[in-house]
Amino acid sequence: MVEDLCAHPPGHPLVLISDDTVAALYARTLCTRLSSVGLDAHLATFPAGESHKSRETKAALEDRLFELGAGREAAIVAVGGGVTGDLAGFTAATWHRGIAVVQVPTTLLAMCDAALGGKTGVDLAGGKNLVGAFHQPSAIYADVEVLATLPETDYRCGFAEMVKSAVIADADLFGALEDDREALARRDPDRLERAIERCLRIKAEVVAGDEREGGRRAILNFGHTVAHALESASGYSIPHGHAVSLGMVVEATLAVRAIGFPSEDLGRLERLLRAFDLPVRWPTATVVVEQVVSATRRDKKARGGRARYALPIRIGDMPAGDAVTLEIDESDLRAAIQGLEAGTA
Amino acid sequence: MVEDLCAHPPGHPLVLISDDTVAALYARTLCTRLSSVGLDAHLATFPAGESHKSRETKAALEDRLFELGAGREAAIVAVGGGVTGDLAGFTAATWHRGIAVVQVPTTLLAMCDAALGGKTGVDLAGGKNLVGAFHQPSAIYADVEVLATLPETDYRCGFAEMVKSAVIADADLFGALEDDREALARRDPDRLERAIERCLRIKAEVVAGDEREGGRRAILNFGHTVAHALESASGYSIPHGHAVSLGMVVEATLAVRAIGFPSEDLGRLERLLRAFDLPVRWPTATVVVEQVVSATRRDKKARGGRARYALPIRIGDMPAGDAVTLEIDESDLRAAIQGLEAGTA
Repeated sequence: MVEDLCAHPPGHPLVLISDDTVAALYARTLCTRLSSVGLDAHLATFPAGESHKSRETKAALEDRLFELGAGREAAIVAVGGGVTGDLAGFTAATWHRGIAVVQVPTTLLAMCDAALGGKTGVDLAGGKNLVGAFHQPSAIYADVEVLATLPETDYRCGFAEMVKSAVIADADLFGALEDDREALARRDPDRLERAIERCLRIKAEVVAGDEREGGRRAILNFGHTVAHALESASGYSIPHGHAVSLGMVVEATLAVRAIGFPSEDLGRLERLLRAFDLPVRWPTATVVVEQVVSATRRDKKARGGRARYALPIRIGDMPAGDAVTLEIDESDLRAAIQGLEAGTA
Repeated sequence: MVEDLCAHPPGHPLVLISDDTVAALYARTLCTRLSSVGLDAHLATFPAGESHKSRETKAALEDRLFELGAGREAAIVAVGGGVTGDLAGFTAATWHRGIAVVQVPTTLLAMCDAALGGKTGVDLAGGKNLVGAFHQPSAIYADVEVLATLPETDYRCGFAEMVKSAVIADADLFGALEDDREALARRDPDRLERAIERCLRIKAEVVAGDEREGGRRAILNFGHTVAHALESASGYSIPHGHAVSLGMVVEATLAVRAIGFPSEDLGRLERLLRAFDLPVRWPTATVVVEQVVSATRRDKKARGGRARYALPIRIGDMPAGDAVTLEIDESDLRAAIQGLEAGTA
């Protein structure tokens, strides 16, 4: 990938943005390599952690772009996980009303999902991604070798979005994940590359058909209405991959009742998530159910304060057409969550 | 316009954004009228002045949108001049990755120019509109009656963009402005409406062909390379309309030498600007020429630190095609400015 980036720099200067952890592990070296072939490359860092995906960090990065004399021809290279991709992508989206951005995801989660699709943004105290823009990257470089240094919990989180991609669009991929789960868990590069590529293809197809989420793109939200509510209610103490894993189990349970999602598919979903060490039982000790229910009302897909859900018909299949979200009674949501608390699901 | 906005609200809640001056004169009453027909309308204000077109003001408006529970279906109504339109438009562009905005310009400058075209943004200490987005309004309501309360200097400034529209695209409009200059100066509503409509049509045509300023849209920048540099070098103490007036005279002078813009057209341009009480002589006392020259290097159109200019061939005509900007030697720029200082032009 470095060769390709060296040969086809998307702008100049190139401003690499990463958090200080990834800078030390990877981005600083990448910046040096880009400079060594004569490119005008600079590194701008910010403190690691979702709490820094903020308007304040964005402003600090903008001040740095100004210092560097970055104009319309400048390009940003986002090197890191979802936080970095969203923050650096949004910074690119609004600098001089939009400059090029290249995404270099360094987590499995970002490789499978966040780096593609053009959703960028920052969080406010009241909610995630409340301020942002749609801004497509001009290239994505997913290098599975960088996953070697990723902590185990972070690594496992990536499978949540991989499983989601399979559930919404590709029963064969779901089967492949079941078959390859052990090789994937031990970070086998070939299997990883193949799985990531399929996830990116699925997402690219969906996004290309509905770039600004007017309709069908909402299928990517399977599991995410509950996941976002759970993250918000927990004060963002639950990792995104865990929240998506739990969200998928809750929403698949809703789907069984609402649109006949097969119970055996729910069973397969739970087993696969467990195989990747992802949670499928409600974290009773840390999250109050009513707070999650009320947080769903503020979801971006909500209409008139009523939450909407993108639910699958079966593994690999979502309802046809553009009207892919469905309103669900809050009592059904409570029942589904309580089922997971009791461990009966 | 109020009837139309009541009948076709672009979203709900409606959040009117205006500065405190325009709120007292107009926006508060408009908000009350919208509420009186049952719409969920709210007013959010900020202190008047270009210095408040900032990231900080935008953040305060976002916090207010959150308090009001504004989601994806909310819409912003920008009520005011260029500062308000840019700030409120940019706030709309990034709230939940983009909600609807209606522009209600209350200055002649905003009616002729800023309200249309989708350019939004905020200023940094180092320059204007460095952070922003392209975000088209879903409607523009230009009501010439509100111009009655506009201070004379602000009113006159509007003619700078009107004259610009004529120079870049419509020799007939230029003639009409010459003929109607007295009626326009005394704010004759019919003549104003006709002239504003022609300006909006010109801009709409240009913008429709090149929404994100990849090529031909740059013709709208005639006079603006120098105007922006002048504003920056003066610490934004010169009103935009004055800067554009001076910018057009300087750039038309460059055009005479560079591409044969007729000297008699330069004479007509100067006379028309004077008729609207707009400045055509260099403000030697307040601005250092070298600071203006160096500010042009940081212009958004600059390539490799060299300023580029969108210059007319004659009144009503710009060069054909998409390559509409031209590099000009800084020595020629200095000479053109010095000509205006000496009053020889």
